[in-house]
Amino acid sequence: MTKNRLEAFSDGVLAIIITIMVLELKVPHGEGIEAIVPLWPVFVSYVLSFIYIGIYWNNHHHMLHACNRVTGGILWANLHLLFWLSLIPFTTGWLGENHFGAVPSALYGAVLLMAAIAYYVLQQVIIHSQGADSVLRRAVRGDWKGKLSPLVYIVAMASAFRWTWVSLALYVFIALIWLVPDRRIERVIDAHK
Amino acid sequence: MTKNRLEAFSDGVLAIIITIMVLELKVPHGEGIEAIVPLWPVFVSYVLSFIYIGIYWNNHHHMLHACNRVTGGILWANLHLLFWLSLIPFTTGWLGENHFGAVPSALYGAVLLMAAIAYYVLQQVIIHSQGADSVLRRAVRGDWKGKLSPLVYIVAMASAFRWTWVSLALYVFIALIWLVPDRRIERVIDAHK
Amino acid sequence: MTKNRLEAFSDGVLAIIITIMVLELKVPHGEGIEAIVPLWPVFVSYVLSFIYIGIYWNNHHHMLHACNRVTGGILWANLHLLFWLSLIPFTTGWLGENHFGAVPSALYGAVLLMAAIAYYVLQQVIIHSQGADSVLRRAVRGDWKGKLSPLVYIVAMASAFRWTWVSLALYVFIALIWLVPDRRIERVIDAHK
Amino acid sequence: MTKNRLEAFSDGVLAIIITIMVLELKVPHGEGIEAIVPLWPVFVSYVLSFIYIGIYWNNHHHMLHACNRVTGGILWANLHLLFWLSLIPFTTGWLGENHFGAVPSALYGAVLLMAAIAYYVLQQVIIHSQGADSVLRRAVRGDWKGKLSPLVYIVAMASAFRWTWVSLALYVFIALIWLVPDRRIERVIDAHK
Repeated sequence: MTKNRLEAFSDGVLAIIITIMVLELKVPHGEGIEAIVPLWPVFVSYVLSFIYIGIYWNNHHHMLHACNRVTGGILWANLHLLFWLSLIPFTTGWLGENHFGAVPSALYGAVLLMAAIAYYVLQQVIIHSQGADSVLRRAVRGDWKGKLSPLVYIVAMASAFRWTWVSLALYVFIALIWLVPDRRIERVIDAHK
Repeated sequence: MTKNRLEAFSDGVLAIIITIMVLELKVPHGEGIEAIVPLWPVFVSYVLSFIYIGIYWNNHHHMLHACNRVTGGILWANLHLLFWLSLIPFTTGWLGENHFGAVPSALYGAVLLMAAIAYYVLQQVIIHSQGADSVLRRAVRGDWKGKLSPLVYIVAMASAFRWTWVSLALYVFIALIWLVPDRRIERVIDAHK
Repeated sequence: MTKNRLEAFSDGVLAIIITIMVLELKVPHGEGIEAIVPLWPVFVSYVLSFIYIGIYWNNHHHMLHACNRVTGGILWANLHLLFWLSLIPFTTGWLGENHFGAVPSALYGAVLLMAAIAYYVLQQVIIHSQGADSVLRRAVRGDWKGKLSPLVYIVAMASAFRWTWVSLALYVFIALIWLVPDRRIERVIDAHK
Repeated sequence: MTKNRLEAFSDGVLAIIITIMVLELKVPHGEGIEAIVPLWPVFVSYVLSFIYIGIYWNNHHHMLHACNRVTGGILWANLHLLFWLSLIPFTTGWLGENHFGAVPSALYGAVLLMAAIAYYVLQQVIIHSQGADSVLRRAVRGDWKGKLSPLVYIVAMASAFRWTWVSLALYVFIALIWLVPDRRIERVIDAHK
């Protein structure tokens, strides 16, 4: 029951985050193609962030699948994750509005980094709550994506000030490696059923 | 459990899409009837898109009813569908704001076309996941509406540049043929119970 | 299962409607009391509409409690109700923005009237789907509130052009008589258990 | 069933409130660091209010856990609580927009005070509905946080006009004492299982 409500609340927040981002795509006043062409950076940022939120929803979904008991710590670690994700519409809008400028690119990475850390913290809190026999611990063993992503975000943030396009390419790269669905957790759960 | 969460997330996103569209109906400053009369194209676009989102919710609902197991591929095919639907408030706003101009009408159809393709992809992914004995495959056999709609969207997009009103009439026509509730899936499920 | 999803979608839409109304309460630029005092008509309209949406949520909740089977007709009758309710943030904003002017007051009543009719239609569709032994039919027998409200809305709309304050008083009056929770449905359900 | 829907609706409203607050963080036009530095008061207000909504979600969650039966009175007491919480995005935006001015600080506290009272009323309505053997009554016995908070809000509101920073420090202080998760209710429920 408790887990249901945690999932429902998280789903609600993620659904709203993913949807209000589209509000940054402001309806233009002209009616020709030339009126919407300038919106392409906002659109591209939207696509990228949509994929990121989709990845988080997907992984969050799998992680909670491997969680049986919800503690107060899990509730707050989850809210902490949602907090950083809730800033993505802002950083996405700023990135698009400024045609992928240096500081917006770095800030975009900073929020992704904080979200990745918050995700890791949530994972550890759940593992800790499950004790020595944690299903989740086994599932995320060898999680190279989870370890690689923060490092790449840091590199991307640093390169934003010099080679902004490298920074953006790195964000796209990380999104792509995560798009491959994470079957590890499912596999471990199946193996121990 | 997994399916519940997929449905809940989709419902959340669809509920937000259908509701934020109304925000394009900007509160006017005057207080006479003449202040709201100019809003009629925005209102008409809103009604049309409300019906389209309602149709998608309705069909999505029936399709998932015929789906037992949720795979990673289904999750992403579903997010892909939600992505295109999330652009409908934008195209609706642009259509209304510009009194059904040519390019906005064509773009409106383009997003409907992409959503129809995404819906079809999701359907195929679910059928594929169900294997040879797919309930959904049997249910959608002879789905002339699903095959007709993309063709009509393409015709409507092409005619938008020449006869914009034909294009709009075609969008209304497709909405009307879908409004008739889809009882095929229910019937096949009942038949195989 | 099906009913759950109908309820979840309706709850989502109603939750969004009730919350986005508050966005009409625009954050003022000044920081003194004189900066927020002019917002009082927007605030009062917000309170009134919050109560109306609350009443609809409450009654919708009770009505679906007395509904076992969801048909395609019920899905669309429900979407029709949600459509009219989704216009309430607009009429509320217009009413507040114009300090309860004549036309905004009449339009506010018109949308309430359409929502009341849509609610009645939904009720009839559910009763029809339940057949001769409908629990809901018995529950709503003698529903004087449901019959009185549309009449009062019509009177309020007419009086808006002459005595606007009478019109507003009537909207408050109807909200108050509905605030008394509707125990009839619960009672009939209990009696037939 | 009934409780599920009450929780789902409340979760929906809270998820929207927590997420639309971020819309006050307006995307700036410049692309340098100097463009976002002025946003810090809005950001800080957002963090504070995010924590407050998180606390309410958390406590609401625990309180409803100790509630078995939903009455009409509980539905309305819950809507009353959601009403005051729905004003938090407005007071948060005003507080941030005006760099923590005196009147915005006092109003921020006023809405927190009303929400605290509404929470208390909801708690009493649930306790009353449970009769003499109320699990919730035992659980909240010795609830010093619930009793302290309104008093501190009143002090903070009064001090806002003279020492605004004291007022803000008090809001932070109350948020911090609530961040410690409330294990009392869980403990009493466990003890009586």
